[in-house]
Formats: sequence, structure tokens, C-alpha cells
Amino acid sequence: MKRPDEVEIIKLFQRRFGKKSRFVAEDLEILNLADTSFAVKSDMLVQSTDVPLGMRLQEISRKSLAACVSDFSCKGIKPRYATIALAIPRGLSRHQVSELAEGFARSSREFGVQIVGGDVNEGKEIIIDVSMFGVGKKMPRRGGAKVGDIIVTSGPFGYSSAGLKIIAGKTSANAQFTKKCKEKVFKPTPRLEFGLKAAKYFSSSMDSSDGLSITLNDMNKQSQKRFVITNPPIEDDVVSFAKKNKMDLYNIVFCGGEEYEIVATVPPKNLQKVRNLAKRSKTQLYEIGYVTSGTKVVRLEGSKERIVRKCGWIHLRS
Amino acid sequence: MKRPDEVEIIKLFQRRFGKKSRFVAEDLEILNLADTSFAVKSDMLVQSTDVPLGMRLQEISRKSLAACVSDFSCKGIKPRYATIALAIPRGLSRHQVSELAEGFARSSREFGVQIVGGDVNEGKEIIIDVSMFGVGKKMPRRGGAKVGDIIVTSGPFGYSSAGLKIIAGKTSANAQFTKKCKEKVFKPTPRLEFGLKAAKYFSSSMDSSDGLSITLNDMNKQSQKRFVITNPPIEDDVVSFAKKNKMDLYNIVFCGGEEYEIVATVPPKNLQKVRNLAKRSKTQLYEIGYVTSGTKVVRLEGSKERIVRKCGWIHLRS
Repeated sequence: MKRPDEVEIIKLFQRRFGKKSRFVAEDLEILNLADTSFAVKSDMLVQSTDVPLGMRLQEISRKSLAACVSDFSCKGIKPRYATIALAIPRGLSRHQVSELAEGFARSSREFGVQIVGGDVNEGKEIIIDVSMFGVGKKMPRRGGAKVGDIIVTSGPFGYSSAGLKIIAGKTSANAQFTKKCKEKVFKPTPRLEFGLKAAKYFSSSMDSSDGLSITLNDMNKQSQKRFVITNPPIEDDVVSFAKKNKMDLYNIVFCGGEEYEIVATVPPKNLQKVRNLAKRSKTQLYEIGYVTSGTKVVRLEGSKERIVRKCGWIHLRS
Repeated sequence: MKRPDEVEIIKLFQRRFGKKSRFVAEDLEILNLADTSFAVKSDMLVQSTDVPLGMRLQEISRKSLAACVSDFSCKGIKPRYATIALAIPRGLSRHQVSELAEGFARSSREFGVQIVGGDVNEGKEIIIDVSMFGVGKKMPRRGGAKVGDIIVTSGPFGYSSAGLKIIAGKTSANAQFTKKCKEKVFKPTPRLEFGLKAAKYFSSSMDSSDGLSITLNDMNKQSQKRFVITNPPIEDDVVSFAKKNKMDLYNIVFCGGEEYEIVATVPPKNLQKVRNLAKRSKTQLYEIGYVTSGTKVVRLEGSKERIVRKCGWIHLRS
């Protein structure tokens, strides 16, 4: 028998996660937390829409956890536990299931998150739904930006978008740039250390995985403020890639998505502290603009203001 | 535009759940609970394997919540909050998505569970993963049965299995029986009231949705005891249905699954209390056997003992 069934898959996961993981057959997971408030996030990864060509199974399961961890990072709350619900297509071999399990095991250690339960199902494609839990009473909301705040990001934008285009072929890029971009796509790494330390200095924050334009538009709308982007978080090699391939740089940087960065607004009095924390956690901080009264997200192009509209990937949009 | 996209679907859900549901766009859900321990369950419903022919969309979303509530019921812990992660195929109309939402809204009221967050994705089929949370420090485990305990179920078995056969056609059944069976399949109702009150008197308990034989075999194995079934939870109309259609009664009752009943073991000193609680919550309690030393699950057939092996639906088993 080459194809494992549900029972074998669960056993396999148990072996993978070890006894301490509590990945045992039980109806409920009881978690003792030191506080009375906990934070939870549920995030579903779907093979046909979230998995780029060439991504390994270990990377798929890692990504499903990384996406959840990213949401905790931007809020400054440490994720502690996770449950994973899986749909697995009939054709997957035991080896392939092991690969998935290995990705969960490794990345749960990488992110310091304990997998406490799971649910295995059969489905038409791989689906991984991760629910993640942490303790936290206070966190910056998406809608807390104030006039005068500085808008920052925890890293540059454009590499993931460029990476997806490189993977799809039909682009010209040197080996070093290609490697950098693929790494961003296949091994997204949330800014957990920086977020955990810096979030208390944010007036608002959000995970950028839906794309920079969507993120900024959501934050400005919920804050009921105008966001002015003066210095988009772009590096020279992304500019060169766009130019070389006659692609719209704006589109690559603002409309891509799949960047697991923190986008936050910082009151001026906290800015130096955030800069110092970024340095200490080896996070490249980009100060991309400021908050003012009004509505909309705009970017300065020379002396002109251009509106930054929502663009990028939206599920089920036809 | 007839097919709603992600943003429209989220808006639609927000309208459906009302302002109090906190189904707003936010990275994390912060929940204040009165205690330091909480219980969580994640359960995934997959269209191609969990949805019988003829099931309406409202019933599908209701079932995804009911399945989770059932796991809380058997442990005596009140479910309070839920997050739902959805995969929705491209072809679904706005009306159909509304139907799903309506099912969530109604059943979350029915079960007293507040939906606090969600995640909408595109997928090849409908997938609903529900994570549910409650507060609880203690609960009966699957492996707590002691010698001399009485084995009980919170209802009869066989109707769901018969219902699935009726839906698939090729059976003979009268209108009343057909209605009863279809109701069990399309509107599974966990024994929440009974479970919340009675669980403290159980030495072990488990949700029976994987089938009676699987449930008993899991409990006896984890308890390291012998389970002797003397009176299977069968009603006359199920016996007649099996006879009329020349089907194996044992198979219908033990191997079916999709019954959201509580299977529990009760120490003799607690039995009368549990009987009284069942009566008060209008739960039909079946005392189906007893626990003794040894291994295996057996049932008495006249003077013979026959082994009750695991049978029923297991995902991905070929």
C-alpha cells in the first residue's frame, strides 16, 4: 500500500512532531495560558492559488505557518500554539506527506510555535488551514494612524512579485537576483523579532501579505487619514529588473503581494526607538511617508501627487 | 457582475453576522476570557467527502459548526467563539454565498457561538474549516474508562447511515422513516445541553461522528480496557429498514458515522445522576454495555462474544 490513509497520516505526524507536541487523537486541545486574553488567527493556504510552481512540499507547509506568524509579528504578539487542518488529495504518496510534516515540524521550531492539534481530510487539492494562538491584551490596530505619524515598512517590496514573474518564465534576470527573489517566494520570513519588540511603539500596523497598495489603503481607510508616500520601499536591483524587462515598477512594488512585511505608522516621538530596534534585530527599516489629514493614499511623483489605488491579487475576482 | 469576489464576500458576511460579530478586517482576534485556560477545536468540512447529495448550502455551513460543537458537547465545555476559513470555488453565485452565510449566522445563534473572524479563499471545491474556542480546565478524556463503568450513548445509531443509503437511492423506506433519516443527515444536532451538564459525571467520553465502532475502539484502546456491548443503541425502525432492504444491521449501526452523539463511560455511582440529566434535557440515553479488564471491544450475540472491529469511513483509505 503506497498511499497512506488518514490514520497513517496522523501517526506519521505524531512521529514527526514528537511526544511533546501533543498531536494526539483527542477531541479538544486544552491550553494553559498565563493571562486571560488570547489572540487567535486562522489562515488557509490553497494549493491552486497560493502555491507557485516549483515550491516544495516542505516549503508549502512552512508557508502556511509563516503566513499566520506574520499576522502575529505585526501586532507584537508572540504566537505560541497552532492547530492545523489539512485537506490532502488522494494521489499524495507517503513520502510526500512526510515532506509536508517535516515542513511543519521544522518551521514550528523556527517560529517557536507548538502544534497542538490537527484534522486530516481528503480533498481535491492540498489545503492547509492554520489556527494560531497567543496571549495578548493590547495590540496596534489597523486603524490607529494619527496625523504626523511616519509610515514604515520592515523590508523592501518587489522581490516576491519579481520572483513570481521569474518562476513563470519570460523574464531576464541575473543569477543573484533570481536567487534572492525565489528565496522570498519559497521561504517567506515574517519579522517576528522586530515586531515583538517594536509593536508597542506603533500607532497602527498591518501585515502586508495582500500587497502594499491593499495594505496602505486598508490602514488609511480604517484610520480615516491621508497617507502620503514619499519614498517607496524599493531597491536598485528591483528598479533594474523592471527596466530590463519593460515592466511597470509601480505594479511590481505596490501590486504584488506575498511580502510578509510589517507596515506600520509610528508617532515621531517613537521613531528613534523603532529605528534602534530595527537595527538590533537586523531589520531594514524603510520610512516611506507620513500621515496627514484627509483621505486616500497618494504618492509623490516629482511635484505631482498620484493616487495609490488598491491593486493586486484578490481571491475570486474575475 | 454576478460572481462576488473576496471583498464582496467578506462584506456580505459582515452584513449577515451583524456588527456584534466582530467579523471585521483585522489581522488578529483578541478574545477576553474569564479564565486562564481555553479549549480549541479545528474541524474541516470538505465538499467532495462530507457533503451528501441534496444538502443545501445553509445546511453545509451549519454542519461545519455542528461538527465542532459536538466535540465540545462530549467534553462538557461550552463553545464560545469560532473563526471560519473558507475555500470557495469560482462558480459560486452571490446568492449561493449568501446561503452559506445565512447558515453560519443562524447556526451560530442556535449553538450560542460567536463567529469572531474569518478567511476567504478560492479553491476547487467548498472547504470550511472551523476553529472553535471555549474556556475549560478539566474534561473527560477518551482514555479514562474504569472497570465496572457503564457505557452510554446520547442517542440511537443507524439513522444517518440509513439516510445516506436512502439519499443514494435503491432502498425501500416509508415516508416517515425517510424524513427522520434525512433530518439526521442534513441537520445533525449535537447534544450540547446534555453534555454540558453530564460531562462531569463521565470517566471518559468521545464524539461519535467517525462511527460507533471507531469511537468505541478508540476509547477502549486509550483506556486499556475491554468494552462489552450488551445492548447496541438500535431502534425497531432501523431493524425493519435493514431487514426490508436485506442490509447488514450491524454495518448500519456500527460502521455508519455522521452521528453526532456522545459516547461516554459512567461510574455506577454517577449513573442515576446522568439518567436524570438526560431526562431533563430530553436526551434519550442508551446504556449499551460495560467496561471490564482486558482488551478489545466485543458485543454479545446470544451467548457468543463477537469482536467489534473498526469499520466505517476513513479519509483517504483506498
